[in-house]
Amino acid sequence: MTAEIICVGTELLLGEVVNTNGAYLAQQCAQAGLSCYYQSVVGDNAQRLEQAIRTALSRSDIVILSGGLGPTEDDLTKETAARVMGRELVTDEASRRWIEEYFAKKGVQPTDNNWKQALVPEGALVLPNPNGTAPGVILEGEKARIVLLPGPPHELIPMFEESVLPYLRKCGPGVIYSQTVKACDIGESRVESLLMDLIDAQSDPTIATYAKPGEVHIRVTAKAESEKAARKKIKPVVKELKSRLGAHIYTTEDSVTLERAVVDLLLANRLTVTCAESCTGGLLAARLIDVPGVSEVFKSGLVTYSNKAKRRLLGVKKSTLEKYGAVSEQTAREMARGAAFLSKSDVAVGITGLAGPDGGTPEKPVGLVYISCSVKGEITVKEYRFTGSRSTVRGAAVSAALVLMRRCILEYYSKVTFG
Amino acid sequence: MTAEIICVGTELLLGEVVNTNGAYLAQQCAQAGLSCYYQSVVGDNAQRLEQAIRTALSRSDIVILSGGLGPTEDDLTKETAARVMGRELVTDEASRRWIEEYFAKKGVQPTDNNWKQALVPEGALVLPNPNGTAPGVILEGEKARIVLLPGPPHELIPMFEESVLPYLRKCGPGVIYSQTVKACDIGESRVESLLMDLIDAQSDPTIATYAKPGEVHIRVTAKAESEKAARKKIKPVVKELKSRLGAHIYTTEDSVTLERAVVDLLLANRLTVTCAESCTGGLLAARLIDVPGVSEVFKSGLVTYSNKAKRRLLGVKKSTLEKYGAVSEQTAREMARGAAFLSKSDVAVGITGLAGPDGGTPEKPVGLVYISCSVKGEITVKEYRFTGSRSTVRGAAVSAALVLMRRCILEYYSKVTFG
Repeated sequence: MTAEIICVGTELLLGEVVNTNGAYLAQQCAQAGLSCYYQSVVGDNAQRLEQAIRTALSRSDIVILSGGLGPTEDDLTKETAARVMGRELVTDEASRRWIEEYFAKKGVQPTDNNWKQALVPEGALVLPNPNGTAPGVILEGEKARIVLLPGPPHELIPMFEESVLPYLRKCGPGVIYSQTVKACDIGESRVESLLMDLIDAQSDPTIATYAKPGEVHIRVTAKAESEKAARKKIKPVVKELKSRLGAHIYTTEDSVTLERAVVDLLLANRLTVTCAESCTGGLLAARLIDVPGVSEVFKSGLVTYSNKAKRRLLGVKKSTLEKYGAVSEQTAREMARGAAFLSKSDVAVGITGLAGPDGGTPEKPVGLVYISCSVKGEITVKEYRFTGSRSTVRGAAVSAALVLMRRCILEYYSKVTFG
Repeated sequence: MTAEIICVGTELLLGEVVNTNGAYLAQQCAQAGLSCYYQSVVGDNAQRLEQAIRTALSRSDIVILSGGLGPTEDDLTKETAARVMGRELVTDEASRRWIEEYFAKKGVQPTDNNWKQALVPEGALVLPNPNGTAPGVILEGEKARIVLLPGPPHELIPMFEESVLPYLRKCGPGVIYSQTVKACDIGESRVESLLMDLIDAQSDPTIATYAKPGEVHIRVTAKAESEKAARKKIKPVVKELKSRLGAHIYTTEDSVTLERAVVDLLLANRLTVTCAESCTGGLLAARLIDVPGVSEVFKSGLVTYSNKAKRRLLGVKKSTLEKYGAVSEQTAREMARGAAFLSKSDVAVGITGLAGPDGGTPEKPVGLVYISCSVKGEITVKEYRFTGSRSTVRGAAVSAALVLMRRCILEYYSKVTFG
């Protein structure tokens, strides 16, 4: 069974509002086992809206529309859908009473156009709206169904969950369930070539890769009659991914971020951590501190942006800065060593680089970053060459630092080797 | 002239990613004076994508597609658009060299599928991608044009601004020009009430307000036959806004961020700055360091997450922490004082608060944040009560700290008063 989503509103066409309803409805359809091949946005224009509904009805079993159920003149969705389906609009008594009650509660007098919201296409299923005055509507045609929902997310979401989802479950053939396996310290093309035969042979479960800064996510998706059955189909695929990608996989849980995985690794090994940041200027600390519960492992961090701060706070030698420069392997090494010593942390990370836009030279171009990681005094330093804007370089450096921390801790403790 | 937007990607159809590109492109088209009546989303499926492109070409002058330019097998946009326009794919030498360079810089070997990204439809205008390996493409047909852009926003946005926008401006029938006046230390409803008569009377230029964390942006937009003529229409409106909002306005330039304005203020007064962050954990330092040229004013910063770090690094008194707690006006005050002393900076900011999700009490709920700002030893402390998730609270605290810094510096030097 196929579904199609049409979001109605000139504010969407002008880009004044990001279409979060589209993403929400798509996710819900996927989880309800409906295949969704098209999503579209149209403005508050009767002719174009009618055309969009006709096109959708010609190719999909269920057409879900959001928006345009308000009381004003440019709210046309209900009228247009009724016309396409050949239905008259009639007053729904329950909706009329609800509107009356709703305004009485607020101590406000309804205006004439508010009563327009009690009109529904004849023969429709009317969906109550506990958070607003526009009822939702389901219209069952001979070949296809139309679902009309209000645009504001705080009205749409509860209505969808309470009224539409139970309805769709009765129509649909089963569920689609996805699990994301997250890998790092490896590029997307390398992941793809390691998984090429699986990707080529896929039908159900399917496998798709997504590149993220410093990471690759691999999504495994299965269709089945229940979530339990879908999980069962996914399990052996995840097992196979684990055996192929080994230590590159840092989690098989959707909700675990890279920083969460690093904090968990620190917690598991009872390690404290600190960082000394130059070009990233606090971004690594900020990302670690985004993990609730990080206070067990993170006590303090330093932003040492000037050379003087690197010397005074971290004890980087003047001679090192003069001979090799602030952006050098040697400075990065001394930053990690100094930060570990100062804070008495088990793990210390140093980051120094040129984020740009100015300051690059042929030998040391913008994007050159050195990251050091000390684990109980064993220091690793890596050179990176990132591209892009100042904030892209800084973001990439932070992701790389998390990846390096993970690798250094794993190698220190378990002598894991990375392919 | 009409434009139409097609966003390509199964992750969009599944609702796993919110379509922010759609909103961004729509906004840009509107600002460039293009009318946009349709937006759609299709998955990585050649047949449906082809149908979507054909439909769009039949009704719009410019069709903008985002996504599906990657190196993998399910990236089909370029191939499909070339087929629809009857073009062969040929290697673009500049793109091939850029891909070579890009991988060489990273010290990584490109895989075979990476070279696919250097293929472009013959006769296409090729748009460079400084932040990735997929070039953009403009294809001019007899009746309509197709623009192909990469999906990742950090690649799409710079490419759009640097290459597509100048191209669209040449195609369009006139210009729509906007200028943003940015205010802080004032709420959106207060701004609206101060400007109500202007907003009500508006037709051209139009005035719209947008609430941002810690700020209110007021966009003034005019239509005219040239950018110069549009600027001339906007000028008196901006002057009026300045006289009504006074010191709340921190810039009338689109490109100036709040952190840039604060850094400029520090530079103008020859002040150095430092910060001591607890719950924001480096985010304020990171945001200041995002400003190029900040090294003149920012030398070092501290992330003091634990009580011990607050005592040891900043000299916050043990008795203060015991009597008032880490999240208190007194601790915030001592943090700013200690940070100023340690780093010998003219301006020092301390932030301590409860970002959640856990750890709140009835007296000290999640969202309670104290921010202190010392200007040459004069310390101001303010209490804030933010709502939302851990990252929302942290982001709001950083914005509030920038606003407080600005106010404290302005008041110290010029005795400006805020309405």
